[in-house]
Amino acid sequence: MSILIKNTRILDVIEEEIKEDVDLYIEGNKISKIGKNLTCQADTLIDGRDKLVTPGFINGHTHLGMSLLRNFADDMELKTWLEDAIWPIEAKLTPEDIYWGSMLSMAEMIRSGATCFCDQYYEMDRVGDAALEIGMRGILTRGLIEDDDKDLKLEQTRALYQNYHKKGNGRLRVVPSPHAIYTCGEDYLKEIISLAKEMDGVINIHMSETIKEVEDCKKDHHMTPIQYIESIGMLDLHVIAAHCVHITEDEMDLVKNRNFYPIYNPTSNLKLASGFTPVQKMLDKGIVLGIGTDGDSSNNNQNILEEMHLASVVNKAVTMDPKAVPAMEILKMATIHGAKALGLDESIGSIEEGKLADLVIFNLNSSSFTPRNNLISALCYSAQEEDIESVLIDGEFVLKDRELTKVDYKQVLKEVQECMDQLLQR
Amino acid sequence: MSILIKNTRILDVIEEEIKEDVDLYIEGNKISKIGKNLTCQADTLIDGRDKLVTPGFINGHTHLGMSLLRNFADDMELKTWLEDAIWPIEAKLTPEDIYWGSMLSMAEMIRSGATCFCDQYYEMDRVGDAALEIGMRGILTRGLIEDDDKDLKLEQTRALYQNYHKKGNGRLRVVPSPHAIYTCGEDYLKEIISLAKEMDGVINIHMSETIKEVEDCKKDHHMTPIQYIESIGMLDLHVIAAHCVHITEDEMDLVKNRNFYPIYNPTSNLKLASGFTPVQKMLDKGIVLGIGTDGDSSNNNQNILEEMHLASVVNKAVTMDPKAVPAMEILKMATIHGAKALGLDESIGSIEEGKLADLVIFNLNSSSFTPRNNLISALCYSAQEEDIESVLIDGEFVLKDRELTKVDYKQVLKEVQECMDQLLQR
Repeated sequence: MSILIKNTRILDVIEEEIKEDVDLYIEGNKISKIGKNLTCQADTLIDGRDKLVTPGFINGHTHLGMSLLRNFADDMELKTWLEDAIWPIEAKLTPEDIYWGSMLSMAEMIRSGATCFCDQYYEMDRVGDAALEIGMRGILTRGLIEDDDKDLKLEQTRALYQNYHKKGNGRLRVVPSPHAIYTCGEDYLKEIISLAKEMDGVINIHMSETIKEVEDCKKDHHMTPIQYIESIGMLDLHVIAAHCVHITEDEMDLVKNRNFYPIYNPTSNLKLASGFTPVQKMLDKGIVLGIGTDGDSSNNNQNILEEMHLASVVNKAVTMDPKAVPAMEILKMATIHGAKALGLDESIGSIEEGKLADLVIFNLNSSSFTPRNNLISALCYSAQEEDIESVLIDGEFVLKDRELTKVDYKQVLKEVQECMDQLLQR
Repeated sequence: MSILIKNTRILDVIEEEIKEDVDLYIEGNKISKIGKNLTCQADTLIDGRDKLVTPGFINGHTHLGMSLLRNFADDMELKTWLEDAIWPIEAKLTPEDIYWGSMLSMAEMIRSGATCFCDQYYEMDRVGDAALEIGMRGILTRGLIEDDDKDLKLEQTRALYQNYHKKGNGRLRVVPSPHAIYTCGEDYLKEIISLAKEMDGVINIHMSETIKEVEDCKKDHHMTPIQYIESIGMLDLHVIAAHCVHITEDEMDLVKNRNFYPIYNPTSNLKLASGFTPVQKMLDKGIVLGIGTDGDSSNNNQNILEEMHLASVVNKAVTMDPKAVPAMEILKMATIHGAKALGLDESIGSIEEGKLADLVIFNLNSSSFTPRNNLISALCYSAQEEDIESVLIDGEFVLKDRELTKVDYKQVLKEVQECMDQLLQR
């Protein structure tokens, strides 16, 4: 399979510019050639004149199976929300619920331009199955909370690695994932660190999300959370660190030259009143950040474009500086920096010859891009998911003319509703 | 013309609930009947089973003609942005530019569910013409800045009132509009107040948007901005007060029992680094707020749904309380409270028998509304403009199956691009 997109423009996140009037040749699952007046033969020819091609966006932190709990409980105290609303119903989710919930989240992500995710949940084999079916790229991480099943959960992580790691033409990865420092004890965390070293040296964890987490850590360990994970050796790994709302300047200095990558979740941090993440400060320190939607029960959607818009504007008020966290910084966060955060920047995150063809094609004939002033600004501040015409993952269309190609969207909606109806009766 | 929507559900912002399984009968430009199993004869019958009908949303503050400057200048210091980027090009806008720019903004508003606006700009007759053509409801206000043309501008406001007030079956209103206390001297402000009294007793002004405005006012008048406008008699009027980012508690007490209505512009206040508007504090005082997009050069779109999402989540972090500014409060801000802020709540802002039929029809067969848990949450936290299937204003479809009915969207995009191309050459 080969695709030639003629006379288009691309978002180049390496050179930090829009390259005008280029052709893009995709051969198999790779970006094979970028140039002017390419004459390659292609199975599919696309007129790119009124389009803008960007790298597929990377949703660095989510809980895909939670879409069943979208709009199930909102505007509540954190403790009540978790203990009285979310956890009791979450405990009743079946593997089938998680399969369909994840499928819906993936449909939503693709429709808003995300091509890759990092998910933390359970029944992760069913999440992997959904990803294989819809054609998505992603990191599967089984959330590890220390309880009576703690050894079983490590076994599940091992089995997941054996059965799903690099499956789907290499699209899936498996990474061990302690839920947080306050749900795993020190010995359990060390076991997980060992497991991560046996695998690919990557770990995924919720980090410094709330003030309570930080205060409790100081009380229990006489250290801040990131000092604590350093003390137990976690910073020797590649750490995907969701949130980091309350990361301190000392901690920033501690991690800035390490493989430690905060994933910023703007809506979730605001909606749960976790606080304002110090994004500009982290950027000033040279820390590479990804961006994520978090799960549907704290967002309540999987629209990565909405996160980009929100991330860009809120940080200007946080710093009281309209120049803070500019559009290109956000676009990098959602592409090449997101890829780096997930350890995948050698193969995805930018439009470069030899990289995998994970691409979003925007239709510029929309109000968001009219008039065609600065398209970098337009992507960050104006763009709507409806402007996304097509999405490619691994060189294949997963969305074409706003229709999902590999699953029936209406059927997914129907299945999710049926799962929810049954869940409420359990 | 009559329309019957059968077996649907409506957002009732008065009772603060979703009413399930009702029929809605629209006769002429009015909501004629709401009830179960209505048997009225109608010209158009709509199967409402998978729909949700809401009042049309009200964009309480915008500058419609600025859509030509969308993504023209971003991520800049406020002073540089205004003086070096926006003002020089704005000065070159022709009436035709403003007509097409406004038309595009209105197209964008309708496509994202807004049926009514309050606009402040110039060449307002051309804005009125666009509104008449596309079928929108709105308040036209000629922005008054004191300079050599100050008397001419008052004349233009008078002429606008004469020619456009209540035009379009009453859809248009005209209100005098001093730009701000720092661009109009005391005498000029008093002249405008007199003019407002001659007209309908309503005035539209930018208020306490930046710290600089407040500090300058204190220096110049030894009062805070709202104390100052009280001292010159402006609070005797119905005041539509855009922004109020830096309103003080004393000022809240001063206005809470007056006809003073802040319009909250979440994206703009954040993007321009104006600050965090104390929304929950104003609500606690019983102040009625509207919500707006502001102009495209400080947003950069006219999507009111995006503002609603942003407004709801950011204020939870501002107050560090996840219960703050809940979904229904936001929905009221965008409907009945917005209507009240514009002085139009007797005729619009809620779905009630006898009110004008300004309605949005959401298609619930989308990820945003799946599963169908709390639809009030879904509207505020999940909904996307693509979920909006149809929009009625004054009993007429202005959007049907996502197509604008009264103007050719593609033509509007083309005209705006041509205007911009010419503008850049002037």
